[in-house]
Amino acid sequence: MSTPAGDQKVVRLYPPSYDIRVETTAIPQIEHPDDAIVKIKLAGLCGSDLHTYRGTESVTTHFICGHEFVGHVVALGASFHAGVTGRPTLYSTLQIGDKVVSPFTVSCGECHFCRIGFTSRCEESRLFGTAVTAGGQAQYVRVPRAGGTLYRLSDISAGAAGQEHLGKEAIAKLADSSLLLLCDILPTGVFAAFQALNHPKTLPMTTSLPYPLSSSATNVASDISALHAQDTVVTVAVVGLGPVGLCACVSLIEMLVSRGLQFRVVAIDPTESRRAKMAAIYSKISDKQDQFAVATIEEGKAIVKKWTNGIGCNAVLEVVGNNSALALSYELVRPFGCINSVGVHGEPQVPYKGRELYDKNVSMDFGRCPVRAMFPMALDILLKRQDVFGAVGGDASLVEKIVSIDEAKESYDLFDKGKCGKVLFDPWV
Amino acid sequence: MSTPAGDQKVVRLYPPSYDIRVETTAIPQIEHPDDAIVKIKLAGLCGSDLHTYRGTESVTTHFICGHEFVGHVVALGASFHAGVTGRPTLYSTLQIGDKVVSPFTVSCGECHFCRIGFTSRCEESRLFGTAVTAGGQAQYVRVPRAGGTLYRLSDISAGAAGQEHLGKEAIAKLADSSLLLLCDILPTGVFAAFQALNHPKTLPMTTSLPYPLSSSATNVASDISALHAQDTVVTVAVVGLGPVGLCACVSLIEMLVSRGLQFRVVAIDPTESRRAKMAAIYSKISDKQDQFAVATIEEGKAIVKKWTNGIGCNAVLEVVGNNSALALSYELVRPFGCINSVGVHGEPQVPYKGRELYDKNVSMDFGRCPVRAMFPMALDILLKRQDVFGAVGGDASLVEKIVSIDEAKESYDLFDKGKCGKVLFDPWV
Ligand SMILES: NC(=O)c1ccc[n+]([C@@H]2O[C@H](COP(=O)([O-])OP(=O)(O)OC[C@H]3O[C@@H](n4cnc5c(N)ncnc54)[C@H](O)[C@@H]3O)[C@@H](O)[C@H]2O)c1
Ligand SMILES: NC(=O)c1ccc[n+]([C@@H]2O[C@H](COP(=O)([O-])OP(=O)(O)OC[C@H]3O[C@@H](n4cnc5c(N)ncnc54)[C@H](O)[C@@H]3O)[C@@H](O)[C@H]2O)c1
Ligand SMILES: [Zn+2]
Ligand SMILES: [Zn+2]
Ligand SMILES: [Zn+2]
Ligand SMILES: [Zn+2]
Repeated sequence: MSTPAGDQKVVRLYPPSYDIRVETTAIPQIEHPDDAIVKIKLAGLCGSDLHTYRGTESVTTHFICGHEFVGHVVALGASFHAGVTGRPTLYSTLQIGDKVVSPFTVSCGECHFCRIGFTSRCEESRLFGTAVTAGGQAQYVRVPRAGGTLYRLSDISAGAAGQEHLGKEAIAKLADSSLLLLCDILPTGVFAAFQALNHPKTLPMTTSLPYPLSSSATNVASDISALHAQDTVVTVAVVGLGPVGLCACVSLIEMLVSRGLQFRVVAIDPTESRRAKMAAIYSKISDKQDQFAVATIEEGKAIVKKWTNGIGCNAVLEVVGNNSALALSYELVRPFGCINSVGVHGEPQVPYKGRELYDKNVSMDFGRCPVRAMFPMALDILLKRQDVFGAVGGDASLVEKIVSIDEAKESYDLFDKGKCGKVLFDPWV
Repeated sequence: MSTPAGDQKVVRLYPPSYDIRVETTAIPQIEHPDDAIVKIKLAGLCGSDLHTYRGTESVTTHFICGHEFVGHVVALGASFHAGVTGRPTLYSTLQIGDKVVSPFTVSCGECHFCRIGFTSRCEESRLFGTAVTAGGQAQYVRVPRAGGTLYRLSDISAGAAGQEHLGKEAIAKLADSSLLLLCDILPTGVFAAFQALNHPKTLPMTTSLPYPLSSSATNVASDISALHAQDTVVTVAVVGLGPVGLCACVSLIEMLVSRGLQFRVVAIDPTESRRAKMAAIYSKISDKQDQFAVATIEEGKAIVKKWTNGIGCNAVLEVVGNNSALALSYELVRPFGCINSVGVHGEPQVPYKGRELYDKNVSMDFGRCPVRAMFPMALDILLKRQDVFGAVGGDASLVEKIVSIDEAKESYDLFDKGKCGKVLFDPWV
């Protein structure tokens, strides 16, 4: 394989909004020694694409859309196999022909943020599918800092101790439509759930130790009395059941069950079709009805009240991206609880008075998922839950259908209007 | 000892504001079986008293002020020594004559929040020095839920393994003016510092492990490259150098040094006298000039920029309680950093746009210190840093002077105008 010269098909958004065109343009070529060119097998259409589609990001120039793609490497820059040591491993090992997935942002793998795992705030961070960095709804894409950014599927989980049954062979069997979930929505859901369960405000419940012992091994004794069994029930609300919220919910339940924790999870969305999909997915992963509920906003509030005697949730995963969801999250969270927000928020001030946050001892996490760092954990969950993440179409799948890239315009339109679920583009049919 | 009948001297605030009167009123008596009556040795005047003094809390009735007090038990309700098992230890062991300190809020020791260590949101939480619960600027105070609320100084640290040199004898030598710091300002400072150093966003620096490994032992391997030495420098800003900010700063440095962490701390306050005190205190605890700086707001911004190549602090301790301090905290914090706010905030919405929080991956903690749970850690730091916390008067002390309770009106006035530092009232001279 090599990068052909010539033209390719791409999906472009024209300013100011709603103007999607499938066009022909030159195939990208290596521009920097750290670049790779990836030939795309499948590209995702995602809720985050709608921010620009709707014009809320004030786009001023057209660009190639898409930040979710899986494919094969067809060309590598001069940095690869140059024999330089101390760089991310892929600079010495990535081969033309390797199958890769990419996080939705570029990360160099070499700056402070990348080293400490906060890869989505890499000093060279760039978002695919913007005017700055051409996206993956195309036949080919140029990946900057490819040795830091890409995951090679053939070796990522090789080192996972105790996970051999989930190793190379299992990965080799994964459908491209399933792998594509690793680019964004599944790791983002995993991130939200992981933040909630590892937050200092949740640790007393997950460790059975009172605060501050729960946060830190210390030689200073605590004189606080012991926890009761009912103290350690972890109650979580997931607010928003789009594709990311569904991933968050499944990941959260998977983590709670695999750690043997007692829990109650309520999944909240005002849209009926979203709730129906959540219910269908839950019925695939469990038949226990007492620890999980799907609810409208009003039902959700009532369920939390009932489950917790009015004190609220330990954690609320906010997976929507607007102020009504943030306000609801505050209402649902208990004193000393945490709001873990992965929604992309806009210009308004967050709807919290300082006094309210003080009075409830609220903790909050905001921001973009460090997909590159969450990848091993997300891959693990992807493999364990192929019953959910392996399906295309049907009641209980995250991916509704795979269509030709030629149908991009109609797909954006339907997706924007909530008339279809997650769509993947095949750029070769 | 027993509760005398008759009258006592108290400090009262009359609505709507600024109206402090020293008056004579009946000595409180046991009203509920769980009550204790404490004869007060010293009571503190605190920055938090100024919120009500200035009328920002819309007070409608007069009440006895003060939420910081140390004294001796002179009467106990029927619950004590009643032989009931399963209650907090003090219900069986507290004796008349025991020396005690009290957190600034009542905590029952028996509800879910108390059991898990989040004592300041006890289901029966009440703040001393309000219309609901008479305060400690008096000769006697009634302590509700006393078996859950009070600390008995003679036995608290007995169980602290490895801390024998800081045990009973050392505690017995502590001055009342030093013990009084345990009621509020020292544990609140410890809480702010502890939250910062144990926040998931700080753990990569303190554990030398990349996120998400830093947060959780997991059998899912990480393929992120190793941390460099310079990645693990913990950079913190303390915003606000009132008594609580000073305690936060000293506690933070004590924790960083005792854990052998590399760090840089900048202590920021616009008021010169506050900065001067901070500098005098620091010169008592260290002679290293490269890892600590005292700064005005503008100097603070410049120092953080220089220290961190423009990326900002890992953590910002907000110890002020207004929106300008919250806005400054956002400016100072780095992507994937945390803002640990202990300031008491008012009605305005916090000055953060959703987009800003997303774009920097900001985490935040707000709220009231669970003093009862932080007590062992605060006592440990109090004992270790008697050079700072043992002093009364002088450049480098937290307590400026001890005055007769008769001087309450003038003291409130001077304290409110920033013309004096922390004052303690002796109700018996
Ligand atoms: N942090 C990250 O790294 C990251 C990554 C991917 C997506 N995102 C963001 O996550 C959010 C969710 O993504 P998605 O693709 O699932 O979005 P989506 O728009 O498909 O789903 C959002 C869901 O929220 C529901 N909703 C709206 N208001 C609500 C409310 N007040 N309470 C409860 N539910 C409400 C809607 O009915 C909808 O089902 C978006 O903001 C997206 O941009 C963030
Ligand atoms: N969370 C809790 O449990 C708890 C406990 C005690 C006190 N508090 C609160 O903590 C805060 C501090 O208490 P204190 O007694 O030290 O207060 P204080 O008023 O004595 O000190 C506040 C300091 O902040 C400084 N300041 C004002 N604006 C600033 C800015 N923009 N940047 C930097 N510094 C600024 C002032 O100059 C002052 O020195 C108050 O809000 C108090 O009510 C909270
Ligand atoms: Zn996406
Ligand atoms: Zn980087
Ligand atoms: Zn106080
Ligand atoms: Zn309680």
